[in-house]
Amino acid sequence: MTVEAHSPLIRKLSAFVALSEAELGVLDRLHRRRRTFVAGRDMVHQGQSDQAAYILSSGWVCSYKIQADGTRQIVDFQIPGDFLGLRSVLLRTSDHSFEPIVNIEAAEVLTSDLLDAFAQTPRLATAILWAASRDEAMVVEHLVGIGRRDADARMAHFLLELGSRLALVGMGSKKGYDCPLTQYHLADALGLSAVHVNRVLRQLRESDLVTFRDGRVTFHDYGGLVDVAEFDPAYLDQTGPLLK
Amino acid sequence: MTVEAHSPLIRKLSAFVALSEAELGVLDRLHRRRRTFVAGRDMVHQGQSDQAAYILSSGWVCSYKIQADGTRQIVDFQIPGDFLGLRSVLLRTSDHSFEPIVNIEAAEVLTSDLLDAFAQTPRLATAILWAASRDEAMVVEHLVGIGRRDADARMAHFLLELGSRLALVGMGSKKGYDCPLTQYHLADALGLSAVHVNRVLRQLRESDLVTFRDGRVTFHDYGGLVDVAEFDPAYLDQTGPLLK
Repeated sequence: MTVEAHSPLIRKLSAFVALSEAELGVLDRLHRRRRTFVAGRDMVHQGQSDQAAYILSSGWVCSYKIQADGTRQIVDFQIPGDFLGLRSVLLRTSDHSFEPIVNIEAAEVLTSDLLDAFAQTPRLATAILWAASRDEAMVVEHLVGIGRRDADARMAHFLLELGSRLALVGMGSKKGYDCPLTQYHLADALGLSAVHVNRVLRQLRESDLVTFRDGRVTFHDYGGLVDVAEFDPAYLDQTGPLLK
Repeated sequence: MTVEAHSPLIRKLSAFVALSEAELGVLDRLHRRRRTFVAGRDMVHQGQSDQAAYILSSGWVCSYKIQADGTRQIVDFQIPGDFLGLRSVLLRTSDHSFEPIVNIEAAEVLTSDLLDAFAQTPRLATAILWAASRDEAMVVEHLVGIGRRDADARMAHFLLELGSRLALVGMGSKKGYDCPLTQYHLADALGLSAVHVNRVLRQLRESDLVTFRDGRVTFHDYGGLVDVAEFDPAYLDQTGPLLK
């Protein structure tokens, strides 16, 4: 098996930079401290200091903040190839918590590992900065959306964005994707009640746009859903390597 | 004059990494393409491709998105020492617009400049990734706040965060800071109407917490304002260099 085939991060960064053999080797070494975490138990707590970052290699994670009023805002979901807590390792104190949604595998990355990797290949530093920038663009898109989009458009946008991200790492297409999220995850991410999530999903299904059922998102009318969401994937920047 | 004295970015990155003479030299060279931009005219438009990033050396800028319904959401303000459009240069398409609030000076930075700088000093790559991570943490804090905090707490949090950021580059203290923002900027950043902004500022002033008048924010009771905002500056990570 080639390195690319077993690392979603390498697939993802390849969308930004045409990686050399040497760079692939450096990335591979970043994956050497393999860890597993069980579903439902926080791996990093909001306010926790001095923890490592992780590269998610299989499974799904959500990052969230608990507000002063006790409600939970899911900031983002992480899928294979995403960093967990890259911010936290650099900022020393985590500004949110991470909870695995299913059992996951992840590689632990220390600040010193990052420095070593960057010293060996500055293009990799740029590629990781690209990935962090893309994550920030998604969070902005997502949180601005909560304030401005109606519930149907918000859900449609969310399902399309996840689909694009999964497609980049070979786990989805314009037909659909497997998705372990519950209605409670969707509710906490989109700022809706679970009952409202249910109603919105039924409407989208009855309009023959998309079905989310039994852990599978199936697009029936991808273009129609793009229209409902006013989804413009430019901010995901998946058009091919910028750095040759 | 030393390099540090004339570069807010260097002051800011010094909070994360103890910079060597060589690293200071690399940072100084990143500032060599100096540009000026006039207040009120967008320097980067949402959807624009292939523009450079900038390091702001003097003045204030706002970054914003225009929503489908025509309303403007200010995502963040940039102050001296901040990058403008670091995301944009990496993601190729800008996901928002940048407008100078006053006349500004900024250094233009191309992707190739970043690669050169990172090749010369990988610690600088880590420091810039730190700065980008801190920006993302602020955006998350800010946008989550719109959904969850009441208007008084939101305004208090906003004024305290700005004060901490300005203090890091030597432009503010717990007594206060100069601030060119108008009520319209505050409204578009906090998701309030201009009338509501006015009322909230009056309440905070009449409670002897803070006054914002004639381009100056004056803290009367810093600790009291921190309580109103439930402000915990840990996410700003200003406690001193992590990398020696």
